[in-house]
Amino acid sequence: MRNLQNDPLLLTPGPLTTSESVKKVMVQDWGSRDPEFIAMTARVRIGVEDIAGVADGSHSCVLLQGSGTFAVEAAITSLIPRDGRVLVLVNGAYGHRISRVCEYHGREHVSLETDEDMPPDAAELAAFLASNGDITHVVAVHCETTSGILNPITEIAEVVQDHECHLIIDAMSSFGALTLSVRDVPCLAIVASSNKCLEGVPGIGFVVAERGALQKAKGNANSLALDIHAQWAGFESNGQWRFTPPTQVLAALDQAISEHKKEGGVGARGRRYAANCRILIEGMRRLGFQTYLSDNLQAPVIVTFHWPPHPNFEFGEFYGRLKDKGFAIYPGKLTKADSFRMGCIGHLFEDDMKAAVEAVRDVLAEMEISL
Amino acid sequence: MRNLQNDPLLLTPGPLTTSESVKKVMVQDWGSRDPEFIAMTARVRIGVEDIAGVADGSHSCVLLQGSGTFAVEAAITSLIPRDGRVLVLVNGAYGHRISRVCEYHGREHVSLETDEDMPPDAAELAAFLASNGDITHVVAVHCETTSGILNPITEIAEVVQDHECHLIIDAMSSFGALTLSVRDVPCLAIVASSNKCLEGVPGIGFVVAERGALQKAKGNANSLALDIHAQWAGFESNGQWRFTPPTQVLAALDQAISEHKKEGGVGARGRRYAANCRILIEGMRRLGFQTYLSDNLQAPVIVTFHWPPHPNFEFGEFYGRLKDKGFAIYPGKLTKADSFRMGCIGHLFEDDMKAAVEAVRDVLAEMEISL
Repeated sequence: MRNLQNDPLLLTPGPLTTSESVKKVMVQDWGSRDPEFIAMTARVRIGVEDIAGVADGSHSCVLLQGSGTFAVEAAITSLIPRDGRVLVLVNGAYGHRISRVCEYHGREHVSLETDEDMPPDAAELAAFLASNGDITHVVAVHCETTSGILNPITEIAEVVQDHECHLIIDAMSSFGALTLSVRDVPCLAIVASSNKCLEGVPGIGFVVAERGALQKAKGNANSLALDIHAQWAGFESNGQWRFTPPTQVLAALDQAISEHKKEGGVGARGRRYAANCRILIEGMRRLGFQTYLSDNLQAPVIVTFHWPPHPNFEFGEFYGRLKDKGFAIYPGKLTKADSFRMGCIGHLFEDDMKAAVEAVRDVLAEMEISL
Repeated sequence: MRNLQNDPLLLTPGPLTTSESVKKVMVQDWGSRDPEFIAMTARVRIGVEDIAGVADGSHSCVLLQGSGTFAVEAAITSLIPRDGRVLVLVNGAYGHRISRVCEYHGREHVSLETDEDMPPDAAELAAFLASNGDITHVVAVHCETTSGILNPITEIAEVVQDHECHLIIDAMSSFGALTLSVRDVPCLAIVASSNKCLEGVPGIGFVVAERGALQKAKGNANSLALDIHAQWAGFESNGQWRFTPPTQVLAALDQAISEHKKEGGVGARGRRYAANCRILIEGMRRLGFQTYLSDNLQAPVIVTFHWPPHPNFEFGEFYGRLKDKGFAIYPGKLTKADSFRMGCIGHLFEDDMKAAVEAVRDVLAEMEISL
């Protein structure tokens, strides 16, 4: 059983559908300074580090209260010195958001922007870094949820390393499902959150950062709450969060990480999502929908579909009817095309995706839309 | 029944023991852009405003992901202009923390500090403001959890208003239990969180701020995630959180606010806590413990007790034995005296407090401590 209630399946970029067992561990109170909770915090940090491929303590996981954006902002203000110069790779809203964070924190920055259906080009990046020797840090988004595009993070990381810059990866919607190991992808930090492919509930973000960089980060941050150096120093000194943690959210993440491992780790989770994605795309295409991205650019995370070219199509009604059938989808976020999105991550399985496609078929019929 | 599990009662400043019904609503998933969740967000904002005594839309509630400290920092960076000059009233760790936030955000600040067992003096404050006409904002803590002291917030507010300054109140551990209405206590903002006297779970803070000040706050903040103006503008435009909210934590807060109202609101909750506090203090004194504060300074929130003067007393052992009997207490935070703290807030009742005192009595006997 997935839900005590009969709540809809969330075909969104998150918060997602979580397992019944993840949700049920929240029916408990914890004292945040109690040894039991301190042990849970340590277990979650190690679990995240394992998923990030950390070996020999090269990197350390710093948990942070708040959403993924809080963790991205914390990484930028804490790990980039005040005189750093940042290049942001942008092909969607999350790249733009990183630029805004740099502005808020007074970090000098430029961006290299490509269209929303175009990954950054490694050769272009190399040329840019070669002719802009003052860049110290590059920030890139692994899977840009705006479109669902998969950016070539390994190539990007190699170019950044070749030019002796530091790479911060926003892996919000890929972490735990797409292979991304700090052993293979040289990076200063990976940032993600509890409620995406790890299938926990929302309320915690984290930064898996180079230990040496964390040690040197003192005094960088422009925010107390978002100071990753201080947060890390707190964890390392007494195992505790500096400020009240969302205790139930951490318990859910602890459970979610154990279920991630039990499923078979990143490989198995990624395969389940890839199967979900295939069923979704094939089914929707059979119904006459078109994907925004070509298949070679599509991450198995969230799929952007064009609005169908039919006068009866109205997104609000389409959404409401699907919701009534038990499926919550997501509006589009593209700047240049009318679209909607359907996620294939979370505690969802092949049968759920087939049922979702059938529900879309029925809604089209109800709305008298033939494609 | 309070707990599915047999977890200990939390006699702490928070996270606290919550009701079974508050915890159980978390066993559900919500889409954060779904109309049902948007309605829940609106309901919680109005519920918080009601508890803060907001009438005629004078103030507006801005919810924020993270702990209470996140909300305090957000209020300071967002509501105090960059050229503002701040006076912080300090008599404990939370006052000091506010000064540190001002430092991180480059807000010029001075502090007026009294001992941890001494509330700020209204006459002294008036004299200070009279001779420091450049102060624009005063930040005060209502109940300073360091000691448990109740600061005279009404008198402070009057003095601040007389000197045409703006008052920001950190009401973290009092909001919802001690009377604090923006109708009676003139203030720019009240800051609190989900997991104290409202008896929700941790993960959300909030700022109840003057609507006019929110409108004028654009461009003040030095942080994207903590930008209360932008967060408020988001809520006002489409009812949605800018960034992923902790959906389950909000649902718990929604339920907690409805239980707060059902209990009889601030008055009834405050009376329950006051009764809890009386039982705790009387019982502990009977056992030979001494409170740090005199009764007239004690808020019915958390009580600081001196370590007993007996060679067998060791806090770690005392804590562990009490925990085994089902009660989690809290270490002290005073700078000048060895102490521990016991909270009387959360979903706790007279019988719980009596049982806690009995457990302490038994632990003393086990440790062979006679006072």
